[in-house]
Amino acid sequence: MQLPSTLLENAVAEFSKLPGIGKKTALRLVLHLLKQEKGITTLFGETLQKMRNEILFCENCYNISDGKICSICSNTGRQKDTICVVENIRDVIAIENTQQFHGTYHVLGGIISPLDGIGPEQLTIEALVKRVRDNQVSELVFALNPTIQGDTTIYYIQKKLSNYSCNITTIARGIAFGGELEYADEMTLGKSISNRQPIHQYIK
Amino acid sequence: MQLPSTLLENAVAEFSKLPGIGKKTALRLVLHLLKQEKGITTLFGETLQKMRNEILFCENCYNISDGKICSICSNTGRQKDTICVVENIRDVIAIENTQQFHGTYHVLGGIISPLDGIGPEQLTIEALVKRVRDNQVSELVFALNPTIQGDTTIYYIQKKLSNYSCNITTIARGIAFGGELEYADEMTLGKSISNRQPIHQYIK
Repeated sequence: MQLPSTLLENAVAEFSKLPGIGKKTALRLVLHLLKQEKGITTLFGETLQKMRNEILFCENCYNISDGKICSICSNTGRQKDTICVVENIRDVIAIENTQQFHGTYHVLGGIISPLDGIGPEQLTIEALVKRVRDNQVSELVFALNPTIQGDTTIYYIQKKLSNYSCNITTIARGIAFGGELEYADEMTLGKSISNRQPIHQYIK
Repeated sequence: MQLPSTLLENAVAEFSKLPGIGKKTALRLVLHLLKQEKGITTLFGETLQKMRNEILFCENCYNISDGKICSICSNTGRQKDTICVVENIRDVIAIENTQQFHGTYHVLGGIISPLDGIGPEQLTIEALVKRVRDNQVSELVFALNPTIQGDTTIYYIQKKLSNYSCNITTIARGIAFGGELEYADEMTLGKSISNRQPIHQYIK
């Protein structure tokens, strides 16, 4: 695709670098900005730069934060003895939206995946072990995706924590609400049967 | 969706303003930028602002341009007496990609659409009439979308130019390459039969 201006071409190239945005979509977005007032683009650029330069990561749980300690860790109403271990910030947002979890989080920043060159030292596992060691943590809830890498990560952390008396749990796997039994994969359906729950727990 | 930081929230809101980008996609894009070096976001923001502030529109054809006159209008190899009239810059890019047109363009900036409050005075029709009046224009090729608004625009311009001896044509409508006859709408199929062409013209 030949563009009539190098300025336009550079802008399209910048947008195309974002995930899931191809050259055609990028061109549509740039032409949209061109149609608007100049101030809109200035605000757009400055907001992104401000965000990137000023955003902080919580020193305790590595969640995104406006200050040194995030709003969840500094909230006195949250149970500090329960830590939910997640892969990334999007998982924190997803779990927070359920309003079912009242503890704190620990963002690993990824999962152990030797094929992608991600080992334990690239993640915040050391900091997690330190948190368990220095604080009274009664439960660690793993909310990782059910892949081999996720299971490896759980196994690795579990071994690291074998000296501490801390319950280690994982979120329940089973048939999703709205999911149809006949289309569920065998693994999920099998787990949902072997881990069946008393009905009073289900409707409470 | 509750986000843990106002800086993040502002950035997501800015991305969500772009067409076709919802809040979830916006969050994905912002988190992608967060994972990269700070310089990447700075470059992204500055490139867009530079583009918006410095880009020019060709004084002759209203195409996007780095200078006062665009690269197509200033190209001495192009036929200046043939003008292709298009709705927007994306159409110029699409036609240029075919490498089948060797004349110049005129970007209207939209089409006459009273329901959307777009009348002839919002478009570059006056400038087009002036171009035809002041230059030796032998052919005006309309490449507008085949809608009522497109036809209205052609009709309006045609009337404005009735005093000038200039051929007015429109791009051919018919069955697309790769299109299947049985799925074509009646209008298109009908036009493609009534405007049938000698086979030597087709394979030349």
